Amino acid sequence: MIFRQLFEPLSSTYTYLLGCEVTGQALLIDPVIVSLERDLAEISRLGLTLAWSLDTHIHADHITAALELKNKVGSRIAAPAFDRLPCADLAIEDGVAFTLGSLTLQPIHTPGHTAGHFAYHGADRLFSGDALLIDGCGRTDFQNGDADALYASVTGKLFTLPGDTLVYPAHDYQERRVSSIAQEIQRNPRLGQQCSREQFRATMANLNLPYPTFIDYAVPANLQCGVCPVHLPENVQKYCGQMTESTQG
Amino acid sequence: MIFRQLFEPLSSTYTYLLGCEVTGQALLIDPVIVSLERDLAEISRLGLTLAWSLDTHIHADHITAALELKNKVGSRIAAPAFDRLPCADLAIEDGVAFTLGSLTLQPIHTPGHTAGHFAYHGADRLFSGDALLIDGCGRTDFQNGDADALYASVTGKLFTLPGDTLVYPAHDYQERRVSSIAQEIQRNPRLGQQCSREQFRATMANLNLPYPTFIDYAVPANLQCGVCPVHLPENVQKYCGQMTESTQG
Repeated sequence: MIFRQLFEPLSSTYTYLLGCEVTGQALLIDPVIVSLERDLAEISRLGLTLAWSLDTHIHADHITAALELKNKVGSRIAAPAFDRLPCADLAIEDGVAFTLGSLTLQPIHTPGHTAGHFAYHGADRLFSGDALLIDGCGRTDFQNGDADALYASVTGKLFTLPGDTLVYPAHDYQERRVSSIAQEIQRNPRLGQQCSREQFRATMANLNLPYPTFIDYAVPANLQCGVCPVHLPENVQKYCGQMTESTQG
Repeated sequence: MIFRQLFEPLSSTYTYLLGCEVTGQALLIDPVIVSLERDLAEISRLGLTLAWSLDTHIHADHITAALELKNKVGSRIAAPAFDRLPCADLAIEDGVAFTLGSLTLQPIHTPGHTAGHFAYHGADRLFSGDALLIDGCGRTDFQNGDADALYASVTGKLFTLPGDTLVYPAHDYQERRVSSIAQEIQRNPRLGQQCSREQFRATMANLNLPYPTFIDYAVPANLQCGVCPVHLPENVQKYCGQMTESTQG
């Protein structure tokens, strides 16, 4: 498998490029609209063709590049069935494998950060989205977030994978890049083996995080697979960058 | 490739079990004498046969299981040529690939922690020994250790590998298990991109670490590929456990 972990610094998002050596097809997990050209250049450099984009959930901190990629290079859009996006070409369902040439990803419904959140497990790698971060997890106070559901998703589903499974999260804010299931079970301070459901519920209820800067623009944009609003306040215009007319709503 | 990361808690050592699915042969990197039975049980459970043990260097904090494994199951011993161990069946040299069925490891001479230290690079994984640890590195004040040499080994050799190469260290004292070359370049506080050779030299000269508890027993034992001293002070007997007569000197 061809593999690249790509970092988008505005929202500290990791986009994953997976390529099949047999068919030359590529897939992007959680592509970000402002990094679209960089991602396409990397795909081209590797001699691959982008076949699919695949999001883990409706993001609140950045706009997906899914629709813009489709418009530019004809890639198709896969997204969780739960969110019923009319713009998606394929609705991802729990346990129904997603295949691309010799690559297979197993979608795992992992609600809690958002109700429709999916993680994707392929070979020895887990793309954990915002459900499981290195030494942490995504917040649970928006988009039908639910601490009990997230605890069940991570401890009851992700932590049953083999310990050596590599954990590739959707974000890290300290430039860490990879972990493993064994590491997270051992030392995740929120969800590790020493943490009860009650402790987790209390932790998440007392994070006192600020209201997300971009959520009111990102969520409606991502419900359309990535359509940048025409009028954006100056302080968040950087999250859209230079978009084509076709992806401006 | 079959892969297991195994932890030995006395010396916080990671042993790596690599297996070839085609031939059913296994290799252990840095096996520890007190974990020998656990490692053999795992190899058996996987339906594999141990063909080789392979050390990254002459360890000062634990005794290698290489000789005891050879005596018990007939596995052969590979060790860096630099150390000229008469007990080794194969002398590892820089750039001369080590193969086991479909697996290939490229040995990289990485002096600095010890003069004869090797890292092993295979597929997308680097077994970095004590040369490069997660957010750190091995000490350089014994066994012909040399801070300048270690800086050159890590920044001049290991940091030239692809950024997505997984870094599997020989130790971690905080239960972290895996990193990547990109992560270490970005944030290793001793050797990362922000650290000059002069800063590294000063850091290593001022660590003020205690004299290693077990070094006076471990180094002579490991120069014989793992022969436990017959008489050990009570406080370090745990590092040998129950050994057979054949590996007691």
